[in-house]
Amino acid sequence: MAFNIPRGTQDLLPGVSEQWQWVESVAREVSRKYNYQEIRTPIFETTEIFQRSVGDSTDIVQKEMYTFQDRGGRHLSLRPEGTASVARSFVENKMHGNVTQPVKMYYIGPMFRYERPESGRMRQFHQFGVEAIGSDDPAIDVETIALAMDFYKACGLDNLKLVLNSLGDKEVRKNHRKALVAHFSDRIDEFCSDCQGRLETNPLRILDCKVDRNHELVQSAPSIQEYLNETSVQYFDKVKQLLEDIGISYVVDPNLVRGLDYYTNTAFEIMLDEPEFGAITTLTGGGRYEGLIEEFGGPKTSGIGFGLSIERVLMALEARNKLPEVGSSLDVFVVAVGEKENDKATTLLHDLRQAGISCDKDYAGKKMKAQFKSADRVNASRVIVIGEQELESGIVNVKNMESGEQEQVSFEHLVAHLTSLI
Amino acid sequence: MAFNIPRGTQDLLPGVSEQWQWVESVAREVSRKYNYQEIRTPIFETTEIFQRSVGDSTDIVQKEMYTFQDRGGRHLSLRPEGTASVARSFVENKMHGNVTQPVKMYYIGPMFRYERPESGRMRQFHQFGVEAIGSDDPAIDVETIALAMDFYKACGLDNLKLVLNSLGDKEVRKNHRKALVAHFSDRIDEFCSDCQGRLETNPLRILDCKVDRNHELVQSAPSIQEYLNETSVQYFDKVKQLLEDIGISYVVDPNLVRGLDYYTNTAFEIMLDEPEFGAITTLTGGGRYEGLIEEFGGPKTSGIGFGLSIERVLMALEARNKLPEVGSSLDVFVVAVGEKENDKATTLLHDLRQAGISCDKDYAGKKMKAQFKSADRVNASRVIVIGEQELESGIVNVKNMESGEQEQVSFEHLVAHLTSLI
Repeated sequence: MAFNIPRGTQDLLPGVSEQWQWVESVAREVSRKYNYQEIRTPIFETTEIFQRSVGDSTDIVQKEMYTFQDRGGRHLSLRPEGTASVARSFVENKMHGNVTQPVKMYYIGPMFRYERPESGRMRQFHQFGVEAIGSDDPAIDVETIALAMDFYKACGLDNLKLVLNSLGDKEVRKNHRKALVAHFSDRIDEFCSDCQGRLETNPLRILDCKVDRNHELVQSAPSIQEYLNETSVQYFDKVKQLLEDIGISYVVDPNLVRGLDYYTNTAFEIMLDEPEFGAITTLTGGGRYEGLIEEFGGPKTSGIGFGLSIERVLMALEARNKLPEVGSSLDVFVVAVGEKENDKATTLLHDLRQAGISCDKDYAGKKMKAQFKSADRVNASRVIVIGEQELESGIVNVKNMESGEQEQVSFEHLVAHLTSLI
Repeated sequence: MAFNIPRGTQDLLPGVSEQWQWVESVAREVSRKYNYQEIRTPIFETTEIFQRSVGDSTDIVQKEMYTFQDRGGRHLSLRPEGTASVARSFVENKMHGNVTQPVKMYYIGPMFRYERPESGRMRQFHQFGVEAIGSDDPAIDVETIALAMDFYKACGLDNLKLVLNSLGDKEVRKNHRKALVAHFSDRIDEFCSDCQGRLETNPLRILDCKVDRNHELVQSAPSIQEYLNETSVQYFDKVKQLLEDIGISYVVDPNLVRGLDYYTNTAFEIMLDEPEFGAITTLTGGGRYEGLIEEFGGPKTSGIGFGLSIERVLMALEARNKLPEVGSSLDVFVVAVGEKENDKATTLLHDLRQAGISCDKDYAGKKMKAQFKSADRVNASRVIVIGEQELESGIVNVKNMESGEQEQVSFEHLVAHLTSLI
């Protein structure tokens, strides 16, 4: 059978799609409170955008991107994350010229990585993210962290752990890199082939390697904390102080690193502080970057942002039985048997909908009893029966499905009556 | 410069994205009234899904799809329209077993076609569409038409023209096809090479050809209306009667055809009834289909739906100066100069946001006067100034930016006070 959904993707059907609508509305509401506006970039970009920003040597670009040529020979890739496109758009739309800096934007949408699908990891996954570009005020780092924490809180998730680190500035990273190369060089042949390549291209990523994470040299590697200069220490201290000021607790983890040269100063992750969730522990990754805007031809500009997985929020909520009741309901269900009665029901539905009332009827020729069951199934607040007698008298019963009460109303007054009730 | 957005796509920036949010919220609200629930299918599908549904011989599949292989060798395509994926999902998720039929679903999202970009036609475009699958009641045809008309009305668009046709059932189409082949055969060499191919594969599409639309044989071709059998006529009459019952006027256009065998009975388009809009005249295309669900392995099932372009709604509204005012506004802007003052502002913002109040401050080290300008620019309802004196006294001025009135409030009471105001 070739008629299946592609591996690593999913259909969000009625009953589930409402949960996604709800999470997205929480994200939009939190963004509004923090004065972040939505940006929507295309589903694909020129491949080079990601090679330059995510990085040519990363697994994402080398192994995981959906890359193809369009019919005009352009090399395009489905976006594997959100920051690159926002940075490209910032430069292309000259947002560095905006009067207000930083430019604070959020995005919600699908991203694509060709990975081995597993619980909480899909090939098409969905992120809510923010970027604040154009300021290197530590208060903005704290604001984005608070925004993410606030989002989870509004979703009903607590027991979160904020993990923080400073990656220092360019000078710091250069010195730390030298120390890492010296640390690993003599025994690099004990590491996986990927790590052997990383020693030259990006030794920091050895600390991140899934294969070699337990090697004693990884455990004993020089920490970037020891190489922080005064500027970096001051910056980090300010971030920590402001987090304390607003009552957000954190843990500093010197092993929280980012593989790319763009990352600078603040790096953070938000995790579920419950070991049993295992694979879905990390919910959010974020941090400050410098040089990315220049890479796309813009002026020297610093930014900070995060991306978080909507799938993982929903999984965590489901595991805790905290998914909201978001089933659909209906104001009115119209029961009708017979052609004339159904025609009348069709015009009644139309009139009710014009008045803003949500309503429906049966279209399958069901008997009256079965139609009442349908009304129950869609959680209709009120049921109206149209039979031969009602057509003759021009008067119908309006049944309140919760109280069981019934009222007699004429067709002429029906819309006004129901509008007043709902 | 390789750092541009891909041709035929666009960034929706703050200021514009709010218009899209608004159109989408209208679509969701209309869908709610009509009891259609959201379905979200993946951005790409197995290519064969579209070959089988949209049709192997169509321009869409032959010339316009973004088709690629993933790293596992699967042939995938970005979806060029919405119906195929919904039908695939209907079968894969066994929705024909749902107690309530038809299953009524809507979708909103990006679609992709490699076409020559022009006004109102993008390579990544966005559709709102509905599908009601599992009933061949003409009242459902009328319901989907009414839903689309209602959507435009709620957006503020009137002067719409509903164009209607019946394509009959399988028998009708077979007889009509024979008549078309007979009509064109002798002089087919006067037509474009595409049409010469269509004579055998799908002669109905000759009527649709952009190249040959003015050929006298196209003008004089036998109309499907002449071939409608009794069942088809009855079906069409019922659709027209119900449309009249609910007060939706229409024009029957016998030349409104659909190239694919799946289409049956009702076909409709909604157009802007104003010649000056030229290229964006057609806003919506929809119709009934049969056989599509079987094609994907499901039981005999009939459906109806439409897809409409969100870009075109916005263009039409813009051309009429009817785009809504959807600019952002802010409850509170906090003005602060100096480090201590800014630290206090950061905690104040956090407290206000926890109380649901939208607020912001300056992060660019601007002077007080410039910060007041920023407050104006973001349409802040109220401004609070934090200076040395306020830190000392613990009391701040809350200025109502509309009335100019000022109130003195202590820091302790600030959140409660502002919550009561907003």
